[in-house]
Amino acid sequence: MKKKKFAVVLSGCGVYDGAEIHEATLTMLAIMKNDGVYQCFAPDIPQHHVINHLTGEEMNESRNVLIESARIARGYIIPLYEFDASKYDALIFPGGFGVAKNLSTVAFDGANASVNSDVEVAIKQMFALHKPIGALCISPTIIARVIQGVEVTIGNDLDTVVTIEKMGGKHIVTTHGEVVHDHRFNVFTTPCYMLDATIKDIETGTNNVVNEMMKELEK
Amino acid sequence: MKKKKFAVVLSGCGVYDGAEIHEATLTMLAIMKNDGVYQCFAPDIPQHHVINHLTGEEMNESRNVLIESARIARGYIIPLYEFDASKYDALIFPGGFGVAKNLSTVAFDGANASVNSDVEVAIKQMFALHKPIGALCISPTIIARVIQGVEVTIGNDLDTVVTIEKMGGKHIVTTHGEVVHDHRFNVFTTPCYMLDATIKDIETGTNNVVNEMMKELEK
Repeated sequence: MKKKKFAVVLSGCGVYDGAEIHEATLTMLAIMKNDGVYQCFAPDIPQHHVINHLTGEEMNESRNVLIESARIARGYIIPLYEFDASKYDALIFPGGFGVAKNLSTVAFDGANASVNSDVEVAIKQMFALHKPIGALCISPTIIARVIQGVEVTIGNDLDTVVTIEKMGGKHIVTTHGEVVHDHRFNVFTTPCYMLDATIKDIETGTNNVVNEMMKELEK
Repeated sequence: MKKKKFAVVLSGCGVYDGAEIHEATLTMLAIMKNDGVYQCFAPDIPQHHVINHLTGEEMNESRNVLIESARIARGYIIPLYEFDASKYDALIFPGGFGVAKNLSTVAFDGANASVNSDVEVAIKQMFALHKPIGALCISPTIIARVIQGVEVTIGNDLDTVVTIEKMGGKHIVTTHGEVVHDHRFNVFTTPCYMLDATIKDIETGTNNVVNEMMKELEK
């Protein structure tokens, strides 16, 4: 049987201004361990800003989301505008502030956030084909912004829950490793580092969400 | 029983100019899965250079090894000059070109390479206390440079094998997931991405090397 092909969308490289590195790495591992294959994507746009991950302060630098994401992907990455839903079985978004700062403006505009147009097109293409979409950590916010009425989880962070509900989404409170599957929209979400988690919890969360998506694909 | 404490030494963030991200992440995961705890360290020095991981070309930028390593460590990282071997049970080096470009000059000077003084002190402190040292991928080259006559593996890359032998080290050819344990010096090595490996192979390699170190610590 042909292996299921996942598109993994990255948003930079580092939790505070890009993709969360453990979530991204362990998503890729989970796909392979569940007998799938993956291709990384990222939008070819400037990062919103660069954060010094030692001090938390902004640095006077500019970096590109695609180029920095390539660090996690070991160079094997494609600009997101080239994404074609007909060539992939599933789409998945690891978390990190990059999702809320680069892939969207959720970090600044909350429920009124705009979503990067390449990201929006990718989600809508998959949705139109009723193919599974996975979202970890803070990523469910962008799904809720693009797909009206979707049911998701980001764990239990009250501010983010309110943001999602204001967007018109439905939120389910969850803990480590739990997956919410919205059957109507075929969306799978899990909290990861939106909870106070260890790297072991991230392994469990990424594995569970990919495993649920794979089961859906094999139905 | 008190959990065994590993010091993980990073060399930046990204395979071509820093620490290899999958190896670093999966080393941290392997430590937790083997019931240990970890603390990340990196030298507070400029990177040798910055590589665009999309094109492989050098960028006109400068970055700091400690600050970039903090991306993998989610901010929880200590400058390597503060390392104190009496407080840790084991020391481990993930790979990536950062090891050969930032932690040492192996990429440029081969067998005549110098090793960053904080790195050298950390290795020598552990060695003096006969505590286990782990090294993945290209990292065994710096162990061979600091500890005369050590037996290590980097897989089967001929140029690197010759470099190690010229340094006075002994090299054992290995494949995915195999660990070489030098009992005399208490050094554990495994090839990881020095072979043409998948992220699943990296999980196996990091888990095997940490597991062997843990067994030695529990003797």
